[in-house]
Amino acid sequence: MVPHLVTALTGPINELEQRILDSMPAIERWFRLEWMEHTPPIYTSVDIRNAGFKLAPVDTNLFPGGWNNLTTAMLPLAVQAAQAAIEKICPEAKNLLIIPENHTRNTFYLTNVLQLQRIFSTAGLNVRIGSINPEIKDVTPITLPNGENIVLEPVVRSKRRLGLKDFDPCTILLNNDLSAGAPGILEELHEQFLLPPLHAGWSVRRKSTHFQSYEEVAKRFGKMLGIDPWLINPMFNQCGEVNFAEGTGMECLRSNVDALLTKIKRKYKEYGINEKPFVVVKADNGTYGMGIMTVRDVSDLDQLNRKTRNKMSV
Amino acid sequence: MVPHLVTALTGPINELEQRILDSMPAIERWFRLEWMEHTPPIYTSVDIRNAGFKLAPVDTNLFPGGWNNLTTAMLPLAVQAAQAAIEKICPEAKNLLIIPENHTRNTFYLTNVLQLQRIFSTAGLNVRIGSINPEIKDVTPITLPNGENIVLEPVVRSKRRLGLKDFDPCTILLNNDLSAGAPGILEELHEQFLLPPLHAGWSVRRKSTHFQSYEEVAKRFGKMLGIDPWLINPMFNQCGEVNFAEGTGMECLRSNVDALLTKIKRKYKEYGINEKPFVVVKADNGTYGMGIMTVRDVSDLDQLNRKTRNKMSV
Repeated sequence: MVPHLVTALTGPINELEQRILDSMPAIERWFRLEWMEHTPPIYTSVDIRNAGFKLAPVDTNLFPGGWNNLTTAMLPLAVQAAQAAIEKICPEAKNLLIIPENHTRNTFYLTNVLQLQRIFSTAGLNVRIGSINPEIKDVTPITLPNGENIVLEPVVRSKRRLGLKDFDPCTILLNNDLSAGAPGILEELHEQFLLPPLHAGWSVRRKSTHFQSYEEVAKRFGKMLGIDPWLINPMFNQCGEVNFAEGTGMECLRSNVDALLTKIKRKYKEYGINEKPFVVVKADNGTYGMGIMTVRDVSDLDQLNRKTRNKMSV
Repeated sequence: MVPHLVTALTGPINELEQRILDSMPAIERWFRLEWMEHTPPIYTSVDIRNAGFKLAPVDTNLFPGGWNNLTTAMLPLAVQAAQAAIEKICPEAKNLLIIPENHTRNTFYLTNVLQLQRIFSTAGLNVRIGSINPEIKDVTPITLPNGENIVLEPVVRSKRRLGLKDFDPCTILLNNDLSAGAPGILEELHEQFLLPPLHAGWSVRRKSTHFQSYEEVAKRFGKMLGIDPWLINPMFNQCGEVNFAEGTGMECLRSNVDALLTKIKRKYKEYGINEKPFVVVKADNGTYGMGIMTVRDVSDLDQLNRKTRNKMSV
């Protein structure tokens, strides 16, 4: 089901969209068969850019926030999806522990965590929130801007399990993206389901690996649908070490940006698209929109000011 | 998820309801474990009577109609449930054939069939409607009161498969309750999924068997929840052959009704319920509300008029 966006386009439906709508049964079947081969992550959010002529994912978050942005109408779908996931992964589950990010003063983020707790409670689990923030030493109720209360509790680690005082979960749901690396307290929990697994954290993940895998998937999907996979796939290139502060690795960046802009120009010409191409430079392991820069001409890279250089140093 | 009924009670929540709400995680887990042992039917509708102090199923339909009664808000949930069912039963499915009831002039019923077609189409299947009504000899479009069109097509039977001209389904969804017995055209289809299976039809099913099984389930559920299973289970007794037209078997009916009324009175006394008990007499294989009669006193059975006797002769 697609959410109806308030900003929905009102113009005529374009060719790509029509092709996707017409092929819905084939697409759904393709996904059903893919899910048999590949277990999907317990949850994901994907940022999608829609250029009208092209529609592509630009960021995939395996520890999604923003659950509080779901409309009331979408909530039952989230609950039903959670039930299906529990049924597949651990039908015997009773207790679920959510590990949130450590920032306790971001009430917008905590409203999101409370919503996540509500979704999995309604799906039929006892859900509590265990903080791995060392500052959380006691049961900590926090009142949110909407008047609701969220309760953070300090986690208790035993030799083989993680839980709370008097709460032994069989499943642990990470909503902490582990940017700083997997903390020891989450390691060697072989008796409990840890979802997503530790190797999904940003200390291990690389955007370049993700886009390479996505490119393969887009090719197969494009073949099935009879479309140019470029229409759903962002072109990319990868540089090794680049240090904006010290100015090292800039030569690789410059030549990659140049090569990409040329390839995109060629595609735009092929499709008669009258737009100026651009490339987005991202840190391979960046999160929270850090280390992101838009470049429309390779000469832009020679004129970086100090602020941009700092932003790019993740 | 529960639908919000327009007729929702506004009084204080009663003890049974509160117990169920409080035990939601335990109940959902119980269902998850049950579904591992017992495959649920592809679809079912259940008539539930809510007496306030007691809440019990009184009729279970394995070929449910009324899909057109779903509100727009419930539709995505039905689609998601259909997707989950397909994924479990036959993820490789492409084509689904719906076999509706034979009555082609009941446009309310056909609106229901069209909705069912829409649900499974949106879930990702090519869905067409194959009639086993011998009067349907060609592709038959029918315009419904809401202006939409439904297309009935004559089924084509080969030695081992059932389909339409140029349409070979891997799955056949029965929305025909087979009251008159399973027609030969549906038998020995060993290569295709037939859902629900033929033995779910009313020519085989017996209400008494169903309520006996339900009683067992209610006992286990009541034990898990710590409640008297009577609160969710309709008491019942079964007679052998009863013929209202000829007046045979009435003695068994009279003594069963009497025994049930006595048992219910005892329960009402136990719970301090100030109501007059009643028994509903039903034909063991009846459908469409045929063969149903309410009795508040055993003497009611002696004063049946001709109309009631006719109604009870299914």
